[in-house]
Amino acid sequence: MADPEAVGKAFLQYYYQLFESNRAGLANLYQEGSMLTFEGQKFQGTQAIVAKLAALPFNQAKVNPTSMDFQPSVAGGIMVFVTGSIQTEGESNALKFSQVFHLMPVGQSFVVTNDMFRLNYG
Amino acid sequence: MADPEAVGKAFLQYYYQLFESNRAGLANLYQEGSMLTFEGQKFQGTQAIVAKLAALPFNQAKVNPTSMDFQPSVAGGIMVFVTGSIQTEGESNALKFSQVFHLMPVGQSFVVTNDMFRLNYG
Repeated sequence: MADPEAVGKAFLQYYYQLFESNRAGLANLYQEGSMLTFEGQKFQGTQAIVAKLAALPFNQAKVNPTSMDFQPSVAGGIMVFVTGSIQTEGESNALKFSQVFHLMPVGQSFVVTNDMFRLNYG
Repeated sequence: MADPEAVGKAFLQYYYQLFESNRAGLANLYQEGSMLTFEGQKFQGTQAIVAKLAALPFNQAKVNPTSMDFQPSVAGGIMVFVTGSIQTEGESNALKFSQVFHLMPVGQSFVVTNDMFRLNYG
């Protein structure tokens, strides 16, 4: 299978680039069975997930990963684990966060089947 | 399948109880294909994983999860995502951490196929 680290890094670069400036564009990375748990709130399916992400109270943000870990999954996919900080427009302080993705291959690409996001409050 | 939240919470209670005072006892939660990425260092298989965990430079610790998220995985297992703090003996300050597990059912129980751990440095 594809190298988990190479695929995972390319995915994160693409994902956070969209997250920073065009969250509606994340729709093509999810599918109907995809699950998002965002700060404990649960969403399922592309439409519900992207509606939540698009409704976050900022337009622009800058995501700075400080660690990125990757492992192959027993399903033939890739587990991705990120810690880092996010600076949203209008906020003076960056917020620390952790995020987990499970990616599954679909055709020549990958989709997010699982996504869990938490801010790590100081 | 089993309720991810109920299974996940019971798993975390059992896991961290062993982690706090008897890390060698974690051996029966891993198997040969299990993977651990601990602060970026990779280990595979029960023996290598438990050797790493047992060699951490403290005997006792107290783990305080502040968030626990659970999702079913496409493999029929459970994804577990924890953020919290860990206080080790001899350290005056608790350290914040994040950890991800993927659990798979084996017989009447569950094993850890994937484990990724990061400290979140302030």
